[in-house]
Amino acid sequence: MLTLYYAPKTCARASHIALAESGLPYRTQRLNFAEGEQRQPAYLAINPKGRVPALVTERGALTETPAILAFIAQSAPQARLAPLDDAFAFAELQAFNSYLCSTVHVAHAHRFRGARWADDKSAHESMQRKVASNMRECFELIEAQMLRGPWVMGAQYSVADAYLFTIAGWLEGDGVDLAGLPATRDHMERMAQRPAVRQALAEEAAGA
Amino acid sequence: MLTLYYAPKTCARASHIALAESGLPYRTQRLNFAEGEQRQPAYLAINPKGRVPALVTERGALTETPAILAFIAQSAPQARLAPLDDAFAFAELQAFNSYLCSTVHVAHAHRFRGARWADDKSAHESMQRKVASNMRECFELIEAQMLRGPWVMGAQYSVADAYLFTIAGWLEGDGVDLAGLPATRDHMERMAQRPAVRQALAEEAAGA
Repeated sequence: MLTLYYAPKTCARASHIALAESGLPYRTQRLNFAEGEQRQPAYLAINPKGRVPALVTERGALTETPAILAFIAQSAPQARLAPLDDAFAFAELQAFNSYLCSTVHVAHAHRFRGARWADDKSAHESMQRKVASNMRECFELIEAQMLRGPWVMGAQYSVADAYLFTIAGWLEGDGVDLAGLPATRDHMERMAQRPAVRQALAEEAAGA
Repeated sequence: MLTLYYAPKTCARASHIALAESGLPYRTQRLNFAEGEQRQPAYLAINPKGRVPALVTERGALTETPAILAFIAQSAPQARLAPLDDAFAFAELQAFNSYLCSTVHVAHAHRFRGARWADDKSAHESMQRKVASNMRECFELIEAQMLRGPWVMGAQYSVADAYLFTIAGWLEGDGVDLAGLPATRDHMERMAQRPAVRQALAEEAAGA
């Protein structure tokens, strides 16, 4: 049994959807970020970084969304969540996920997490003012160069779709008008119709 | 033949070392960052993100260090640069590389690349003031929780070592005293003795 530690509306949603798609047995464990549960000793023993997601397996805990997504895909080959037999295509998928974690998620994080990178409030406010344009630029590049359609990698759905859907869900809150991102909007609607996505969102809302 | 596009002292060094370790045939192509070559049309046709590294293969270009490192390891299994037959161990390796790209490299980038996340100079200066403490914290966590020794993954050398060595090379410039990071310093010395590392550094310096 796999256990996913998550908080609602975070990037952990990508791993949650991938688990639901995979057919692997799993349970979820919600952390209360408002009470700082992610920085308490019980959770730090699982993930010393104090972040979500963490996926606890029988061999130990895994962290970092791109690593967890590839692990889920490799653990459930029959679900075809990644091109496991093609190193080049697998690297393309990983490059997409790596861009999301190191550039797009980071661009978003400057809205609420400015204290990670500067100590004074005026710097945080300055960072916040740039979030919408940065996120829009990232998604314009994704639409122009990366999202092949109907899924990220083309005809075949993959874990990259779960990750893109998760981060695209932050755009409106970040001040980005989805009307200017038609391929992203279409992708979100396509994703919302998948049974596994509905299941993951329902479990997330229920705090299951 | 693989072609690595790089600029000196950037994260592209990790892919360069991995190529030298792999035994795969490769050449390198240096970009002149001072002249903004990474944002000129010829290079944007290879990597629309305008960053390094990019690895051009016979099937197209790959970007993002963690993706390129896993691709090199999978393309040269005899070099044993990643635990390719063990999904959990492979995910641990990937989690390490993902932490480096999404947290540690990002912490460092706030020293010179603040313009990515804020428009005013005082915010950039505020970010710069926090770089040393952020980088030190990252490496203290790496030493306490991640770097098993003698190599990142333990007894077996992997592409994660090339990536750690590359980013550790930025610490002194970031204002972090290596005397407080003995495991990192030992790792750097161990790496510097490897023939492939010497080869990559010599090629990088020669602009080959």
